[in-house]
Formats: sequence, C-alpha cells, structure tokens
Amino acid sequence: MTRKELFEQIKKKESFLCVGLDTDLSKIPSHLLKEEDPIFAFNKAIIDATADLCVAYKPNIAFYECMGAKGWESLQKTLEYIPKDIFTIADAKRGDIGNTSKMYAQAFFEQMNFDSVTVAPYMGTDSVTPFLEFDNKWVILLALTSNKGGLDFQIQELSNGRKVFEEVLTQSKEWGSSDQLMYVVGATRAESLGEIRQIIPDHFLLVPGVGAQGGDLASVAQYGMNDHCGLLVNSSRGIIYASQEENFAEVARQEAQKLQGEMKGLLETYL
Amino acid sequence: MTRKELFEQIKKKESFLCVGLDTDLSKIPSHLLKEEDPIFAFNKAIIDATADLCVAYKPNIAFYECMGAKGWESLQKTLEYIPKDIFTIADAKRGDIGNTSKMYAQAFFEQMNFDSVTVAPYMGTDSVTPFLEFDNKWVILLALTSNKGGLDFQIQELSNGRKVFEEVLTQSKEWGSSDQLMYVVGATRAESLGEIRQIIPDHFLLVPGVGAQGGDLASVAQYGMNDHCGLLVNSSRGIIYASQEENFAEVARQEAQKLQGEMKGLLETYL
Repeated sequence: MTRKELFEQIKKKESFLCVGLDTDLSKIPSHLLKEEDPIFAFNKAIIDATADLCVAYKPNIAFYECMGAKGWESLQKTLEYIPKDIFTIADAKRGDIGNTSKMYAQAFFEQMNFDSVTVAPYMGTDSVTPFLEFDNKWVILLALTSNKGGLDFQIQELSNGRKVFEEVLTQSKEWGSSDQLMYVVGATRAESLGEIRQIIPDHFLLVPGVGAQGGDLASVAQYGMNDHCGLLVNSSRGIIYASQEENFAEVARQEAQKLQGEMKGLLETYL
Repeated sequence: MTRKELFEQIKKKESFLCVGLDTDLSKIPSHLLKEEDPIFAFNKAIIDATADLCVAYKPNIAFYECMGAKGWESLQKTLEYIPKDIFTIADAKRGDIGNTSKMYAQAFFEQMNFDSVTVAPYMGTDSVTPFLEFDNKWVILLALTSNKGGLDFQIQELSNGRKVFEEVLTQSKEWGSSDQLMYVVGATRAESLGEIRQIIPDHFLLVPGVGAQGGDLASVAQYGMNDHCGLLVNSSRGIIYASQEENFAEVARQEAQKLQGEMKGLLETYL
C-alpha cells in the first residue's frame, strides 16, 4: 500500500485507528477454546466487527510465536482474512546484520505478505536497509517508545546536542523516503511530537499507548498530525479485551467506534 | 545451564566455540533437498560432526522464521537433537514492552527450552527484565555489534561522557547478575574489549564476527578473556558452509577443529 492509498483510506473511513491483534489464549472468551483454531476464531470475529472502523491491523508477533508452529499458522490465516484495503503491520521489532535482516524481510513481506514490519534501530543502517528493498512495503522504525524503559536510553542526550531518538530519526530518514519509512512514537510521549515533527514533518507515525498505557489521543493529534494525517494510532487491549463474554466482538466494536468518533472530530479540526 | 557448568564444559572440551546454525535452503548441499526436512537433516549432520568441539549452538531465528510454520518445526527438532550439556542460544534479538517480552521469553524458554536468547536494548529495562525471570535461563544483550551499522548509534558519545553501548552495559548490569546476563560484542570490535572489561569484568561475552566478518580470535582472547574464560566465540558461515559438497559435515568438522585448536592454545595462555 502506498502513502497516498493509506491517506485515501483514512479520509474515506474518517479514522486513523489501528487495531492491535495481541491475541492471547488466556484472555480470549472461554467459549472460543473449543474451536479448532481459537486464536484465528477470535481474530476473525474482531476483524468482522471492526474492519469498517479502522485503517490498519497490527498483530504483535510475540503472541503467535509463543505458540510455535501452530501460532504461525493462526497468524497466516489471520493475515489472509484481513481485507486487502486495510494496512497490515507485523509488530515484530526485528533487526539483525544485513544478510539476516534480509531473511526477516522475506519472512514478513514474501512468506506472509504484510505491508510493513516494525524494526529496532540499535544495529544501524545495514540492519534496516534490507527491509527497504521491497516495493510498496514499509519499515516502521522504533524511535520513542511508550514503555517506561523507553526513557533509559532513547532520551539520553548525545554530545552533539541531540537525544538518542532524535539521532535515530535524523540518520534514518536518509535511508529511505517517507513513502517507505514510518516511526513508532508512543502516545505517552505526546510532549515530544512537536520536536519530532521538526525532524520528520512528512512521515507517518505509528502511535501505540492510547488506552491501557494511558496516552491521550487529542494531544497526539494536536502535536502529531500533518497534512496527510500522518498518524496511525493503535489500541490493542482497550478494544480486543473490552469484554471477555460471548458478546466480546460487539463490545470491541463499541470501543473502536468511540475512538473512530473521536478521530473523525480530530481530522475535521486539524486536517 | 549455570555459569559454573558452562565453564566446566569449556575446560573439558578446551574450547569456547559456538557454532551458528544459520541454515539456509539455498546454501545447503543439494543432495539434502530430497530429505523430508532438509534443514533438520543439515543441522543434524553439522551437530554430529561438531558436538565434541563446541560448547554452544546458536540458531539464528530469522533463518527458520522465513520458512513459516515448517521452519519453526525444523528449529524445534534441531533444539531437541542438541546434546543437553551444550549451551543453546536463540539468536532472536527480540525486545518489546513488558507483557510482550514475557511472551517472547515463554516462546524461547518454555515452548522451545533454549538456555538463552539474544535481546536488543533499545526499549530499556522493562523490555529486558521479563527474560530474566526464568531460572537458569540467560539474556544475551546486544552491546557492540559486529556489523557496519553498529557504528551508527552504539559508539556515539553521550553528554555524560559514556558511549551509548557503555551506557547500555552500565545500566543493564544492574538488571540481573552475571549468572543470567551476557553481552554481544562483535569480534570486529576487539579494540573495545579492554574498556568493556572495565565495566563488566565477570560477564560472559558472545562474540560473533570471527571468520566471514573478519574478526581476529587471538585479539578477542587477549583483551576479552577473564578468569572463567568469559567468552563464547561464534562462527557460522565459516564452519557450516565450508563445503557444499556431499562431505560438507566432514569439512565443517575440520574448520571447527582449526578454531578449537587455536582456542585450546589461547586458554592455556590466558587462563
């Protein structure tokens, strides 16, 4: 999917919502456990209930990997079930030396046909560029993450005056265009969005941390939105585990609707 | 495996060799492709040929993940085949927010029973500590990597005077003991081993980059060895792809023997 196509979807659906498919056997409604593939059955119901309200789905790969080969199959089936006009994110946070990153890129872009994959920047340019060699595929690079430990190294100041995450943005924006590179910035770091937009005015940002992690959607839009929206705001637990009863999908839809309604207003205000 | 048990193995085998199982269908001998599981058939032959010469095996997870569910099964079979007195490393370079890192830890320590997993430090303490909550399991944290891009961020100087990788060592050594935490330091960075040993004198280091990547074993031992060896030096391509003929396992053994012979001499010199 191109940046233009993604923006078209955002305008059409009046939404920049990404639904995180962090599907955990111990948290899904118990009546699904009798299904042949409970993980896929849950994801299918969530996708059916939310596909008209969101522009992206983001399975966190850890939740599938911890189930071994079986989890990998559930992930593949889920990916195939997602409508083709919805952007897909493999939240994998990979990154390795060049020939190895190439294997990861093949895993997510060829073996699985995801639109994008999240990548960790610590190993630098040759750990990221192999992911950039695929047409119409995206790297979403970690910049400033939403978790507490995000403050341990990312905001440390370098002797050149930049913080570590600013150095990551400054160097990496030269590795590819804003048509193939996005950045992860946690919603809990909305106060930094202004300075981030100084460095990367055009790039899309994937913003986790709204909801369970406490980030504020209005602040994210106020400081982070650009002229093509430039935001994908993710909610995982707040939507998919809003209810653990038989009507879980309906309640998930209601939570997604609340966020989509708020997003519609923010798009009208800032776009 | 405990640190003491690992050192016992090193003394017994007169080796601190780790063999990297970066097994790639396009590089293994063509006669194996008719096997039901060519990846496992290759790994089995390499393990049979080298198990008495090395103290660790390190499958790089990318090479298995890029084959989907089937790759995951080959990995599981390989892990089960490795003799129990040999240390196993899931070279996965994972790291995510706390509840997600916990899922990765379960994948590698419970689902698969690896002794250790490599972890990326960018997301800080709560992305690493979930891996430290398993008895007799190890985190191997990226510090100073062997690739060219390792120089992009890791050696940048902070305003506190430390380089980024030194800050990673300094902070993270408080997160767990040297009985559960090792560090990745590339053999191509041997000149930094002296300052690294000032910060972490006791920890084991996993040292990739000897062989194909150009690192020098003698320098690594000279600057990096401590009183319990404290080194696991990895070779992947230099051993497993030394020949692509029918006698590949025999030639792999010869390459492993060369390294083990050199290691024996270095252990006698520095231990």
